[in-house]
Amino acid sequence: MLDNIKLSADGNAVIILDQTRLPCEVKYLNLTTAAEMKKAIVTLQVRGAPAIGIFAAYALYVLARNIPKSVDFFKKLNQYKDELNATRPTAVNLSHALERMLKAVGKTKNRKKALAALGEECRAIQHEDIAVCRSIAEYSLSLLKDNWGVLTYCNAGPLATSRYGTALGGLILGHERGYQFKAFCCETRPLMQGARLTAYELVEEGIDTTLICDNMASKLMSEGKIQACFVGCDRVAANGDTANKIGTSMIAVLAKHYKIPFYVFCPASTLDMTCKSGRDIIIEERSGEEIHTGYFKERITHKDVKICNPAFDVTPADLITAIVTEKGICKPPYSNSLKTVKKGS
Amino acid sequence: MLDNIKLSADGNAVIILDQTRLPCEVKYLNLTTAAEMKKAIVTLQVRGAPAIGIFAAYALYVLARNIPKSVDFFKKLNQYKDELNATRPTAVNLSHALERMLKAVGKTKNRKKALAALGEECRAIQHEDIAVCRSIAEYSLSLLKDNWGVLTYCNAGPLATSRYGTALGGLILGHERGYQFKAFCCETRPLMQGARLTAYELVEEGIDTTLICDNMASKLMSEGKIQACFVGCDRVAANGDTANKIGTSMIAVLAKHYKIPFYVFCPASTLDMTCKSGRDIIIEERSGEEIHTGYFKERITHKDVKICNPAFDVTPADLITAIVTEKGICKPPYSNSLKTVKKGS
Repeated sequence: MLDNIKLSADGNAVIILDQTRLPCEVKYLNLTTAAEMKKAIVTLQVRGAPAIGIFAAYALYVLARNIPKSVDFFKKLNQYKDELNATRPTAVNLSHALERMLKAVGKTKNRKKALAALGEECRAIQHEDIAVCRSIAEYSLSLLKDNWGVLTYCNAGPLATSRYGTALGGLILGHERGYQFKAFCCETRPLMQGARLTAYELVEEGIDTTLICDNMASKLMSEGKIQACFVGCDRVAANGDTANKIGTSMIAVLAKHYKIPFYVFCPASTLDMTCKSGRDIIIEERSGEEIHTGYFKERITHKDVKICNPAFDVTPADLITAIVTEKGICKPPYSNSLKTVKKGS
Repeated sequence: MLDNIKLSADGNAVIILDQTRLPCEVKYLNLTTAAEMKKAIVTLQVRGAPAIGIFAAYALYVLARNIPKSVDFFKKLNQYKDELNATRPTAVNLSHALERMLKAVGKTKNRKKALAALGEECRAIQHEDIAVCRSIAEYSLSLLKDNWGVLTYCNAGPLATSRYGTALGGLILGHERGYQFKAFCCETRPLMQGARLTAYELVEEGIDTTLICDNMASKLMSEGKIQACFVGCDRVAANGDTANKIGTSMIAVLAKHYKIPFYVFCPASTLDMTCKSGRDIIIEERSGEEIHTGYFKERITHKDVKICNPAFDVTPADLITAIVTEKGICKPPYSNSLKTVKKGS
């Protein structure tokens, strides 16, 4: 099992698996200073929304432990919180985790009590994420049969969360219980999260894993090699429309054509009931350089060609077989099932 | 207009556009020796089935002109033919063009007459290919409307043939006549023929061209930006099932879902009536290294992950709106329409 974020035994460092070096190098970093911790978030050494939240909570705890006696503890704590929070301003999990940490401290003016509360809270945040992922994994496994071929897209595994991940949970938990799956990872152009991260996670778990280019999914499906498609998501609207990495809607259309179930996995916190449908989701357009050059040795495109590089697409609810959260499996009509799950969360 | 293969003014060299340097460098090569000409085919400086045939015919003519008087002309000619033919043993156009050249020489024992026949025949081979491509382009243009967005896949343009190409002919001919098209090129993983070659050809023709990753086609189609899909093909079976670059069937499934016409373009010589259906077409599996490393700066995959790398897939006839050849536009049922075209060719 990959341990992507943990506290050192003496509590004076956060140890992370450096995701920028994967899969060629497995390098753990021992982070002790504020500068190192902020750099880890900014440079994506730690990435994935839940993982960033967990990391920031541990980071704040470690920094708090090392505040010198001569310094105003509570002033410095708030300063560290603001600095960490500013590293990725749009990451909801980051600010949410840091707010929880300060809320746990409460109104006490006792440094020792505050440190104890912080220590408990950062562990609680990680344990809750593990419990959420574990619950998603159990529901996920209930959808799988032994020996199935499962197509995955982008990365929604342990590296982005803790332990089981979301979309990979059923495969990992099932593998622990002796199921034999065949995982097929789409490489996920242009940033290759499937090739670099998902394939790495699955191979490390010992699961039979085959990497394909995104354009090979249709051929595999036509040959009967895929029994289910498993993807994560960035936001689910109230009607079930789902935003995820660019190309996800392509997999969903193919799955419908070949009559293969298409499942979306996410924590209930990803369900955004204020967002009516996919039309309300704004899609980030990223730099063309990711396609012109990206991971390539040299530029392989004409200097004058235009580039289109949307980071996400929206999969319409009617292409989704079920949306699986830690609270249960939501089936169409999603306007009812998502509301029920959200109320219970 | 790209001039990818031509005879030098003095007839003593074949001049080709080096396709291995595109799109970063536009370099023409002046080939005069047998070694240079064989290397050009083997290293893909010249590529695309019809282009290889045209090139080999010109190469044989140039080599024949330079056979010293002291050497047995007809023996040496046959030797050059065999050497050129051995460079890519499975390329049908290559052996077909070389056989045509020797047949044109016939039984004459007169060196001057033989050279004249060779000179005429190599030009005829290129002119016939231009005429075929031109005819396909006219039929293709009849399917297009001004201002349409057209999605292309892989490379079936002028570089692989002569002048108009097959799948790009309608766009290029229409552009010459003042139509405004928006071309969207899929990059075509893993070998990036769309990014490297098709986008280059279209930009050089002055057509409004946008490059996308293959997984972005679904999003563009869902937004109404694509009015037609244009692809080439490697082989068409008697029932209309079509083998083309891996990922073509994905585009066809998406086109059907979004109710966009999907057209296949090829010379009638590509229709293989001895092949009953797509099940009879054997798909080449290529080296995993193309996906592990390929054009990348460094390996970006786990060393133990399996790779699946089929070079082609088969698009079933029922996903194809029409198959367009120089003899006309074939519509379903293909078992009838293809037979009619093939008989006429």
